[in-house]
Amino acid sequence: MISARIHITLKSGILDPQGKTVLHALENLGIQGVDEVRIGKLIDMDFGEVTKDRAEELTHEACKKLLANPVIEDYRIELVSEDGG
Amino acid sequence: MISARIHITLKSGILDPQGKTVLHALENLGIQGVDEVRIGKLIDMDFGEVTKDRAEELTHEACKKLLANPVIEDYRIELVSEDGG
Repeated sequence: MISARIHITLKSGILDPQGKTVLHALENLGIQGVDEVRIGKLIDMDFGEVTKDRAEELTHEACKKLLANPVIEDYRIELVSEDGG
Repeated sequence: MISARIHITLKSGILDPQGKTVLHALENLGIQGVDEVRIGKLIDMDFGEVTKDRAEELTHEACKKLLANPVIEDYRIELVSEDGG
């Protein structure tokens, strides 16, 4: 079976208010020493009976059409084949 | 500088309605061949002047106290040292 793991992150320079909120919350909890927090998305897709090349193509298509906003986000994909394991 | 990348995923067996919604949206866009989609969180933390061990400790503490819900989520951390690069 083939799986794709997609990392979606905000482009550098784009403000991340959710990350700022988490940073303040950490400070309020007494967790000091963190300079910056940035929040992204992690998406795991499992494929049925498709080849690895086709899975890669579908994953890029999914990112471009639905999952990532190219104006403010970057995405990176990792494909994993699990051969019966 | 030390950074931590945190992957937060739903435990297997926990329903993921957001993932199901994305799966249906992909099908509606004509992206066929995907069996399952699961959505997680990706959190990048940059540390100031702390050692790698201390950064690891702080990251675990942040996950346990704030970032991950241990009832339904698993987390995995990766530490990266960037030596001036």
